[in-house]
Amino acid sequence: MGAERTIGVDVGGTKIDVGVVERDGTVVRSERRPTPVESTEALLTTLAEAVESVRDASVAAVGIGIPSTIDQRAGTAVFSVNIPLAGVDVRGWATETFGLPAAIDNDANCAALAEWRAGAGRGSTDMVMITLGTGIGGGLILGGRLYRGSIGAGAELGHIVVDGLGSEPCQGFCTGRGHLEALASGRAVDLVAERLLGPGAGTPELVAAARQGDESAQEALATAGRWLGTAVATVVNLLNPELIVVGGGFGEAFDLLIGPAREVLERDGVVPARDVVRIVPAELGYDAGVIGAALVGFEALDAAGVPAVHS
Amino acid sequence: MGAERTIGVDVGGTKIDVGVVERDGTVVRSERRPTPVESTEALLTTLAEAVESVRDASVAAVGIGIPSTIDQRAGTAVFSVNIPLAGVDVRGWATETFGLPAAIDNDANCAALAEWRAGAGRGSTDMVMITLGTGIGGGLILGGRLYRGSIGAGAELGHIVVDGLGSEPCQGFCTGRGHLEALASGRAVDLVAERLLGPGAGTPELVAAARQGDESAQEALATAGRWLGTAVATVVNLLNPELIVVGGGFGEAFDLLIGPAREVLERDGVVPARDVVRIVPAELGYDAGVIGAALVGFEALDAAGVPAVHS
Repeated sequence: MGAERTIGVDVGGTKIDVGVVERDGTVVRSERRPTPVESTEALLTTLAEAVESVRDASVAAVGIGIPSTIDQRAGTAVFSVNIPLAGVDVRGWATETFGLPAAIDNDANCAALAEWRAGAGRGSTDMVMITLGTGIGGGLILGGRLYRGSIGAGAELGHIVVDGLGSEPCQGFCTGRGHLEALASGRAVDLVAERLLGPGAGTPELVAAARQGDESAQEALATAGRWLGTAVATVVNLLNPELIVVGGGFGEAFDLLIGPAREVLERDGVVPARDVVRIVPAELGYDAGVIGAALVGFEALDAAGVPAVHS
Repeated sequence: MGAERTIGVDVGGTKIDVGVVERDGTVVRSERRPTPVESTEALLTTLAEAVESVRDASVAAVGIGIPSTIDQRAGTAVFSVNIPLAGVDVRGWATETFGLPAAIDNDANCAALAEWRAGAGRGSTDMVMITLGTGIGGGLILGGRLYRGSIGAGAELGHIVVDGLGSEPCQGFCTGRGHLEALASGRAVDLVAERLLGPGAGTPELVAAARQGDESAQEALATAGRWLGTAVATVVNLLNPELIVVGGGFGEAFDLLIGPAREVLERDGVVPARDVVRIVPAELGYDAGVIGAALVGFEALDAAGVPAVHS
């Protein structure tokens, strides 16, 4: 058992990362290639090639992270905004193609697993991960295990309703209004950046302007931070985690967001839950996707290796 | 083991219920007495007398439900709005007083356990209980166990922030604004009832008026139902439960609240989580408190009976 490794596959909208990973999260070797999005067949062919290119005899399972809501009953991606995998039985395909135990999960669940086992959440038992990217996702480690919900569709932290009377719409498949993602995601902040800094400007430029002292940029990010704080208060009151880890590309503006977020938490979080929670930035950065997917692969390996004692 | 029973104690603001309960939730016998609130000593003395009055040789543990946020690290009630138990080590007191394994929990966690094991949630694995009473509480059954949070302070469903820009304050210990409890609790609806129906009117009168066709009463309850729906959408998107059970005194207006709540869920819940969740009324009514507290007692009994194999 000790020498067994898994391959983690992080499927992104523009690139696919694969890596051979140890049980402790160490990446032994990895590789990247572009994501073909013209057809499901082309994507699956590239996925298979990527896995085979790093595979060796030590690889005992495969885990695949997909930027989509997952239905674990069927092993499918429910929606795939940029990637032609909606409705495809990726778990069944991988099991058959590689002849190994295989599992799939939402990319944010993978990031949560990775930060928990090998990053900012090491040693914690109750940890919530929030990934602030173009969209917002997350993962829940509750009672020492990844909690996926009844069919694997949980942890949609971007769809916490923070402004119940609000009108800001989500994009894509969600018909909701006033969700965290509509108010504090990279995409939402991009719109503010363009308004404040001109056409072509986006979140990176807004963050840079804020760091250089631009007050309107700072206030725009503080607004996003306050909405983040509202969502954090709901998470704290509902789940009483010991730790909240903030990751994702826009999460790199942690230092600009966290002050306003904490102010809201101080008001809207209930005692003692609000006083015990620590909020920290993620540690693993881009590697979290491959590491987390590989850890999902270890879950599949362990499940396959345990004889079924119950019917 | 089979013949063992526990005593459940449901400590309310005006009365204390105790019952001897089987492992399947059957109440063998029970008793009620008024809650003395003049001092901690008086309350604990009455608690002890109530337990001893129903105790027999079959009783192997005691569970106590308290209407308060709990800190399981210390076994204490953190706040006790109407009951002089704040900061008291109730778990330690009960263990010593009765010479039995003892545990305490929030009353809403107890109700959730009871509905899960013996009521509307039987057979479910991922269930969220919302108790709509004077205040709003709840309990989370996640992955086949009661999830209490890192220190036992979780599941404060009344403090989901539904109106992040709102100004409605909570009462008591919470400094927040726009929380579910401020907008859809019995206490919040009491205020509306008084405004619509005159001094002295409260939630029961408003519910009765709505059932008799009073449109302003119906709209007032629909507004509360919509706020409930906002909180339900957040819970569904975050936790993807298979079942939501609505209980509590105000929860008896389930039929008047659920339509507007479902309308909001339909918009703000994400697919597929919103499509798999069922929302049902609680089944056990007032007995849930004693049954759930007794089930917490069984947890303490089982924990005490298992030899510690880890240090």
